[in-house]
Amino acid sequence: MPGNSFGHTFTYTTWGESHGPAIGCVVDGVPPNIPLAEPEIQHWLDRRRPGQSKYTTQRKEPDTVDILSGVFEGKTTGTPVSLMIRNQDQRSKDYSEIKDRYRPGHADYTYDAKYGNRDYRGGGRSSARETASRVAAGAIARKVLTSILGDGVVIRGALVQMGPHRVDRDNWDWSILEDNPFWCPDAGMAAQWAGYLDEVRKAGSSVGAVVEVVASGVPAGLGEPVYDKIDSDLAKAMMSINASKGVEIGTGFAAASERGEDAHDEMYMEDGKVRFRTNRAGGVLGGISNGEDIVVRFAVKPTSSILISRQGVTSAGKEVEVITKGRHDPCVGIRAVPVGEAMMALVLADHLLRHRAQIGP
Amino acid sequence: MPGNSFGHTFTYTTWGESHGPAIGCVVDGVPPNIPLAEPEIQHWLDRRRPGQSKYTTQRKEPDTVDILSGVFEGKTTGTPVSLMIRNQDQRSKDYSEIKDRYRPGHADYTYDAKYGNRDYRGGGRSSARETASRVAAGAIARKVLTSILGDGVVIRGALVQMGPHRVDRDNWDWSILEDNPFWCPDAGMAAQWAGYLDEVRKAGSSVGAVVEVVASGVPAGLGEPVYDKIDSDLAKAMMSINASKGVEIGTGFAAASERGEDAHDEMYMEDGKVRFRTNRAGGVLGGISNGEDIVVRFAVKPTSSILISRQGVTSAGKEVEVITKGRHDPCVGIRAVPVGEAMMALVLADHLLRHRAQIGP
Amino acid sequence: MPGNSFGHTFTYTTWGESHGPAIGCVVDGVPPNIPLAEPEIQHWLDRRRPGQSKYTTQRKEPDTVDILSGVFEGKTTGTPVSLMIRNQDQRSKDYSEIKDRYRPGHADYTYDAKYGNRDYRGGGRSSARETASRVAAGAIARKVLTSILGDGVVIRGALVQMGPHRVDRDNWDWSILEDNPFWCPDAGMAAQWAGYLDEVRKAGSSVGAVVEVVASGVPAGLGEPVYDKIDSDLAKAMMSINASKGVEIGTGFAAASERGEDAHDEMYMEDGKVRFRTNRAGGVLGGISNGEDIVVRFAVKPTSSILISRQGVTSAGKEVEVITKGRHDPCVGIRAVPVGEAMMALVLADHLLRHRAQIGP
Amino acid sequence: MPGNSFGHTFTYTTWGESHGPAIGCVVDGVPPNIPLAEPEIQHWLDRRRPGQSKYTTQRKEPDTVDILSGVFEGKTTGTPVSLMIRNQDQRSKDYSEIKDRYRPGHADYTYDAKYGNRDYRGGGRSSARETASRVAAGAIARKVLTSILGDGVVIRGALVQMGPHRVDRDNWDWSILEDNPFWCPDAGMAAQWAGYLDEVRKAGSSVGAVVEVVASGVPAGLGEPVYDKIDSDLAKAMMSINASKGVEIGTGFAAASERGEDAHDEMYMEDGKVRFRTNRAGGVLGGISNGEDIVVRFAVKPTSSILISRQGVTSAGKEVEVITKGRHDPCVGIRAVPVGEAMMALVLADHLLRHRAQIGP
Repeated sequence: MPGNSFGHTFTYTTWGESHGPAIGCVVDGVPPNIPLAEPEIQHWLDRRRPGQSKYTTQRKEPDTVDILSGVFEGKTTGTPVSLMIRNQDQRSKDYSEIKDRYRPGHADYTYDAKYGNRDYRGGGRSSARETASRVAAGAIARKVLTSILGDGVVIRGALVQMGPHRVDRDNWDWSILEDNPFWCPDAGMAAQWAGYLDEVRKAGSSVGAVVEVVASGVPAGLGEPVYDKIDSDLAKAMMSINASKGVEIGTGFAAASERGEDAHDEMYMEDGKVRFRTNRAGGVLGGISNGEDIVVRFAVKPTSSILISRQGVTSAGKEVEVITKGRHDPCVGIRAVPVGEAMMALVLADHLLRHRAQIGP
Repeated sequence: MPGNSFGHTFTYTTWGESHGPAIGCVVDGVPPNIPLAEPEIQHWLDRRRPGQSKYTTQRKEPDTVDILSGVFEGKTTGTPVSLMIRNQDQRSKDYSEIKDRYRPGHADYTYDAKYGNRDYRGGGRSSARETASRVAAGAIARKVLTSILGDGVVIRGALVQMGPHRVDRDNWDWSILEDNPFWCPDAGMAAQWAGYLDEVRKAGSSVGAVVEVVASGVPAGLGEPVYDKIDSDLAKAMMSINASKGVEIGTGFAAASERGEDAHDEMYMEDGKVRFRTNRAGGVLGGISNGEDIVVRFAVKPTSSILISRQGVTSAGKEVEVITKGRHDPCVGIRAVPVGEAMMALVLADHLLRHRAQIGP
Repeated sequence: MPGNSFGHTFTYTTWGESHGPAIGCVVDGVPPNIPLAEPEIQHWLDRRRPGQSKYTTQRKEPDTVDILSGVFEGKTTGTPVSLMIRNQDQRSKDYSEIKDRYRPGHADYTYDAKYGNRDYRGGGRSSARETASRVAAGAIARKVLTSILGDGVVIRGALVQMGPHRVDRDNWDWSILEDNPFWCPDAGMAAQWAGYLDEVRKAGSSVGAVVEVVASGVPAGLGEPVYDKIDSDLAKAMMSINASKGVEIGTGFAAASERGEDAHDEMYMEDGKVRFRTNRAGGVLGGISNGEDIVVRFAVKPTSSILISRQGVTSAGKEVEVITKGRHDPCVGIRAVPVGEAMMALVLADHLLRHRAQIGP
Repeated sequence: MPGNSFGHTFTYTTWGESHGPAIGCVVDGVPPNIPLAEPEIQHWLDRRRPGQSKYTTQRKEPDTVDILSGVFEGKTTGTPVSLMIRNQDQRSKDYSEIKDRYRPGHADYTYDAKYGNRDYRGGGRSSARETASRVAAGAIARKVLTSILGDGVVIRGALVQMGPHRVDRDNWDWSILEDNPFWCPDAGMAAQWAGYLDEVRKAGSSVGAVVEVVASGVPAGLGEPVYDKIDSDLAKAMMSINASKGVEIGTGFAAASERGEDAHDEMYMEDGKVRFRTNRAGGVLGGISNGEDIVVRFAVKPTSSILISRQGVTSAGKEVEVITKGRHDPCVGIRAVPVGEAMMALVLADHLLRHRAQIGP
């Protein structure tokens, strides 16, 4: 398949541009007889929706999802689930002045280099708007996971770093995530970020971030070595998120500095089950889940749309100063949290179904 | 395809275990009429071969490759190229005592959890021995790249961090890579690493590392948004390497700490071509190459096979102290350098061929 | 990918049920800069639309297609083209009485056996309504073919057998296809079929047919041996059409009765080009096009929905007489002609793009 | 994947040319813990082996298979199974005179048109020798089927037509298949074929055939609508066999002549199970198995290598008379029987595993 699909056995294909009539996706490989209705998808879409605080883009999109197929009498049928979200607040005129300009840090130039054309309205296909489809598909992935594995499977994401400011893991509290506009698990840091991001926003600038996603309750044994390791697929999934520049599992890059006697999780038995005393591995060994929490982090660069002048070039080959006026997120990491959760769910659902196919006699 | 294949249009499938009769791969999608002979593959295999210095495993493997198909009269025919490397120095008896033990940090437990069995001889399929196949396939990928794009395409890897010790980029010299046993581009650091790794090795320990791979001469326009972005595929590729725990592109995780006005590369025109004043993006924008060097780093954890006792469990569920005696690399990052280069070549060759399919009228 | 996608490099994924809100498809891998607008797709959809004569189902569907993505300023952008067709004349109540009945010859029982559920409204996903999406996708495939290969590529289908009555090839006239309601190339036979099918329809019965699809102007060299031969993919494509029970290329089954000296096409040179004196091969040798017309035929069984009582069983396991009252086609072969053409276009477009990827230096 | 792989979840990739050092395949997606040893594969290879009677090519190939990976302590491990068969009796010199000639009915011209080269030794990759790999992979598929479904799954093939001579179904006796050199289930017809084929062979000619493959004991519910229907995949599989020109399921092309009241199998209950009074459908409805025997037939054209002069062209564009002297099969249908069985097993194993992935909660 060309590049707009993800997954092997539980798959989805997204379509749609920022300023076209709609965006959407087709989710295929959904097992039958799973209860599914639009509000269950809407719930997760609402978490990602723009315009909910002053810290995200002021584009007003209700992001209402329609299920067009694959569900009958309240349950999945095993046939493709088609989801559509109409675009509403498009304001295409905002973008007319960058029609012929390649903005630095954007995909303007590379899309044109690849395709010989470019939908300049809001980034077209390269817009983060595409991630709404991921969140919608991810909602179905969550249903697949819990319907087969039970409610013990929980996927949660948090913002753990904004600009240079990292959360203190000693203050980690999952329960406060929705109490601040940042998905921040550290109440003190959330307050600090509020002031910091205000300053960034008012300066017309933007800032990078790190998102952490944790999946609990995943059984040992998922992952398909050696190329479709569960961490390989997570790396691909997280790197495919707009603005993502890095992915790590468990201790990640910090593992490079360690010695063997410190880097590996010692094992023990608990209630007849193999457990690990620590989780430096991030829940994955040899590309296969080990039963501990799967922990992934990804870094996003600062939004490239800023009010500060930077040098770009025009499609005619002229150097030009560029300021991007539209409506944008000062820290795209915030809205990347629900997207990261969705990608985790999508990877896990795919690997769960793949694993079931391969079980021996 | 199950998990032992990589690529969409230029693909390869590897097979074989550490202590089976042979390992190998089938490379498919190779364009016809590319000159190819065994020495061209052997050249790259020799770079990865174990036992070349005291800093890598003392397993003696000539790693001689045979081309079994797909080449006729010295040129590729367009049909699958089958490569085989016989295993020779297997010493299976070394591993008998860990037959029933799950070693911490290894894939022993997870393979057993997944498959209900385990080839305990040297890690079986999870052994880094599998990476010889990648290097062999990568040699063909290099030929594909240069035969289509010309000799300007150059892929080089270097070790940029060993344990806590990083190279100084001001001292970077590609020409000295082969003058030290570490693929280190910083002569001073290479000397320092020698002493450091001696100490680690004598202590029966191991240490992590960071590998950097750079591809120069890649044209703008390669990559298939939004899921098969070239950086997404590189992330998957590098994370699939044994012991890898993190991947980053360009500035990577450091981008999280930056502000928009600093994070993006300004553009200019040079000889009628779009160029970038800096390369913080690592050669990729919106998942598509931008014509600058593609720069990827990945972190590997310390080898889990160490002479220091650590707690594991047995397959019968008993906690047990484990020391791994076999022959191992004190820093697997060293031999990961040629593997990382191969993965870069494999991803680029796949995207080059994919791109040619999609060119408009 | 699960089973609702077709193609490798030029692909499409269909979704939707007979009586859901809509059906549609996502076409991916479309090269950029191909002019495309809805009327060009609508043209082909109109050929397949039901209710155009008394010989096809009386379901009234305008089959109006909307392009939701992938086209900007009148041209394809290289991103996925999402197409949607709203269902209108659904009359779900017609089907309530067969809710718990497995009709003989239908997919009712097998869908239930597979999925543990069944959308009983008009066959749900197994309805021939799904083929509208194929025709829409096929329209794009035609554009891809002509934009790259030129207008010399022509794909035409005809009904060559209805029940036991076959066209006389000596009377073959492509120009009269649209002059009769059967896509029949033999004027005399078209008249004969009219009376025959009237009788069948009035008897509440149905009848099988054979469709022939011919692609002219396809260059030699398309096809990917040995499993994605162009004829293998055509066989899969045509067998996937509802009610299809057989596929043949060139002389097809008749080749079994022949001897070697009669079965193969002798070759000659014409204007410096290799040609074949006959086309028994149907344009394919060794799975690769040979430059002659590609000729495929497929057989469809009689519609299973008939007014004649036949024994089925209920989902509760009771034997029961079944008469299917809805609105149906007495000969589904008629409307299968545009579908067969579409599948030919889809296979050729995919192979054309695949081939371009693999061209040697 | 390029065109040398088959299957989605249970897959195999073949490699190798007629006159290279070896041929082989990599079978991936094999569930773990299935007992497997070389003699089990050899058994099926021996059935296909050439040179066993005067009715097949006199090339002497022991076709000895080696398992190179994926089996440990007598059982599959879940990792790829690599199989290799060394070529022995190659006699490359036989083919030197056709080096520059495109033989009519062969793939010589089309390979050259596609790849710009051609391995002229015995057809290279287009040789039927490749089918030995299919039979080897098929042996593993059979093991997968029986290890999961039990020994009730039986796959058998027979030659049902040679030239114009068809078996009489009233005389069908599976038990005599191995008593004649044709896999003929009709003893009288086998005797008749013997004389007929002698005449054909002595005349230096060849003849076509029809092969029928039947799978018994397959449960209802396998197949992935709407593009990976089980009959669509069977059509692709059988059409990919060398010389194949047509495929049909159940009544196949004969269904075109039928009326609805005759064409569909009536249903009844037997021991609480849905059954069909007839099997005109060939075990498939809506692309999903219905629990009855799956019945597929494919037609093969006469071998194109004959001693009778026919007109071809040279690669330089000169018309030329061609006689093919090598060692060949007067009726390739005979050796296609074990190949057809293997393809049936491969398709069923893939669909069985795919189905398990998709089972609902």
